Amino acid sequence: MRILLATRNAGKLDELRRIVVKRGLGEVRVLGLSDVEDFPEAPETGATFEENAVAKAHDAAKATGLPAIADDSGLSIDALGGMPGVLSARWSGQHGDDEANLRLVLGQLQDVPDERRGGGFVSAAAFVVPDGKEIVVRGEWRGTIIREPRGTNGFGYDPIFVPDGETRTAAQLQPAEKDAVSHRGKALRSLLPHLQEYVEGQ
Amino acid sequence: MRILLATRNAGKLDELRRIVVKRGLGEVRVLGLSDVEDFPEAPETGATFEENAVAKAHDAAKATGLPAIADDSGLSIDALGGMPGVLSARWSGQHGDDEANLRLVLGQLQDVPDERRGGGFVSAAAFVVPDGKEIVVRGEWRGTIIREPRGTNGFGYDPIFVPDGETRTAAQLQPAEKDAVSHRGKALRSLLPHLQEYVEGQ
Repeated sequence: MRILLATRNAGKLDELRRIVVKRGLGEVRVLGLSDVEDFPEAPETGATFEENAVAKAHDAAKATGLPAIADDSGLSIDALGGMPGVLSARWSGQHGDDEANLRLVLGQLQDVPDERRGGGFVSAAAFVVPDGKEIVVRGEWRGTIIREPRGTNGFGYDPIFVPDGETRTAAQLQPAEKDAVSHRGKALRSLLPHLQEYVEGQ
Repeated sequence: MRILLATRNAGKLDELRRIVVKRGLGEVRVLGLSDVEDFPEAPETGATFEENAVAKAHDAAKATGLPAIADDSGLSIDALGGMPGVLSARWSGQHGDDEANLRLVLGQLQDVPDERRGGGFVSAAAFVVPDGKEIVVRGEWRGTIIREPRGTNGFGYDPIFVPDGETRTAAQLQPAEKDAVSHRGKALRSLLPHLQEYVEGQ
């Protein structure tokens, strides 16, 4: 059985493949967007992570006829009213400029005292079956926004995020360590029972 | 009787003086920070407009022994979770760079559709009497964030804000028009009964 993960990110694909195998769903083959015919990717204009994840999964399922999983993730900072949130990847106005986005957040939080620098990575993951069910779940990973970047793993805001209970930033964790506790790992694992149910119903 | 308005902004001083005279409180002399001895201005690190306004009025009253009024204002955009909010003046990471702040907001809202571009200017105004009462009120001015700046009056985000019921931006209104309907005008007028009560009690 083939399932589409609506991403071109090889890291995300590997992560879902590992999770799926661990769950004993060895018969599921996880494809990425690069494995299927091109279809126009709509811009993410939803007001919530959930809205974006569901829309992306719907588009992918509709275009390919495959059951599709999609996620939308970002950093939600308390002192910024929950932003950058759905705008995490384009916070500086430039899409995908991780360094500019991170520097802007540090500038905005410059005068925000340590006790108000809480925040969390959030991921919504949606599972959509063509003409069928639609599930969306959320994973969160709470922590603190520090004042200077540390570490080179990961991407995005990882270098300025210290998860609760850690002294290292997310960018100083090993990828497998991060998978085990991160927002997206949590969200994807929450989807698995629904994926399993669907697989067993086929 | 002398009252201190904790600002160095001549426009704000003129506005409060006009409002005070209109209310029939001709005996009140409104001083600005430039009229009193220097005192260290604390950075605004509150989580809310109210917190900042009260702190600023307290500092001013304590340093001068005068009854003091202070305001804190900003633009609260729905699609940005209520931000730039208390960070309005330093949204781009650079304090007081109106053009950079405005451009950043436009970039962040680039993919936000018209129906979700609501927002409002907010002002909290506090009145603090040395060793006495403390009042804080809020004024709001709702409208829409447009996609290109228009107009040269006002300051800050005025050129991208079209108030509800208007076709012009706040930067296309005449100063007196703006006073009559704006967030800070509303907040300052809400303070007047408390100011009057205080004056009559002396």
